Amino acid sequence: MQRHFDQDLAHLKQTLLRMGGLVESQIQQALQALVDRDSDLAVDVIKQDHDVNALDVEIDELCIQLLALQQPTARDLRFVTTGMKISSELERMGDLADNIAQRTLELNGEPQLKPYIDIPRMANWTMRMVKDCLDAFVNSDPVLARKVCADDDFVDEVNEQLFRELLSFMLEDTRTITRAIRLTFVAKSLERIADHATNIAELVVYMVEGKNIRHVAPSASL
Amino acid sequence: MQRHFDQDLAHLKQTLLRMGGLVESQIQQALQALVDRDSDLAVDVIKQDHDVNALDVEIDELCIQLLALQQPTARDLRFVTTGMKISSELERMGDLADNIAQRTLELNGEPQLKPYIDIPRMANWTMRMVKDCLDAFVNSDPVLARKVCADDDFVDEVNEQLFRELLSFMLEDTRTITRAIRLTFVAKSLERIADHATNIAELVVYMVEGKNIRHVAPSASL
Repeated sequence: MQRHFDQDLAHLKQTLLRMGGLVESQIQQALQALVDRDSDLAVDVIKQDHDVNALDVEIDELCIQLLALQQPTARDLRFVTTGMKISSELERMGDLADNIAQRTLELNGEPQLKPYIDIPRMANWTMRMVKDCLDAFVNSDPVLARKVCADDDFVDEVNEQLFRELLSFMLEDTRTITRAIRLTFVAKSLERIADHATNIAELVVYMVEGKNIRHVAPSASL
Repeated sequence: MQRHFDQDLAHLKQTLLRMGGLVESQIQQALQALVDRDSDLAVDVIKQDHDVNALDVEIDELCIQLLALQQPTARDLRFVTTGMKISSELERMGDLADNIAQRTLELNGEPQLKPYIDIPRMANWTMRMVKDCLDAFVNSDPVLARKVCADDDFVDEVNEQLFRELLSFMLEDTRTITRAIRLTFVAKSLERIADHATNIAELVVYMVEGKNIRHVAPSASL
């Protein structure tokens, strides 16, 4: 019985990693579609959301089945509930990659506003956070997980800086407004993807140490 | 043993409702702070986020304890895992109310752009969805839950309409840009709160019927 359970846990882990890989690639392709102004690729990214959502439902049902079995150990219990939550976070990341692809389709209807420098920089940092949070999960690595949480500050700073730059475009020339706003939405989506990576990292710390590091620091913005 | 478990389930339900009530009131106060240009109230809303987050952690730990007990029935298991997810959805709604309050503080630094008509309209609709999804949960009511999912379309439409209106302000007069953008962020936060209400409604349908209605319809936007 225990051996079967361990196989099921391994299967859950593999399925989560498969979902993570799909989402990582969705984000990377969404950015490529933006930078290359490639509408066909953007459409592909949007279609992939269906597969990501299907995996979320599959993982959910796997986790429910595991919980329904005989009293799991405290550690296995935390693994399964954490798995359910990681699946939700990944699904939302997929939605955000979808949003970026939608904005790309809209942006491709107009000439490119400016060379894309900050957005790819932000995207590379974000994608590394996504990769790291999933590695932290695979390896039960709370040190790497805490690093991901610290990395979130950089993304927030670049997002703010980019917003101010795009605002100055808009203030100078009203013909840039729709494109500048769409780019702020892309930057915002990347910032939210980074937040979800941070959420996964916090879940990994919880899973390994049994310690809830969410909401620990008082809001720095007040 | 079973009686004690039932008491724990009831306690979980009560705590979720307490959290729901707090978030409903946070959203209502954030909107009032916006409409009345009341910065003190906005600051209050931001402070309340701490209590919302603390309840999320408390509910999480309650659910883990319940799952660690002897094999719950399938129905009780769905209730507990659904409870964990509803807590996450409510916590994010609280963050969004916090965002609205932050934007209000910024908006209060400049003269009011225009009478607030559409945003309060959108907010009332959204708040009714939040109330309804929590009532659907309390009463295990899948009919009301499905109604909440259908109500989401209206919020999306008002959000789009409002965005177009604010865009026209920006195109006419660059001095309106920062205020108009902050108002689009407020509208976007309301639209996201409505999405979370829809998520809770889908979770209620799952909890009552064992049926996963998330992601069932293909994306209408493609």
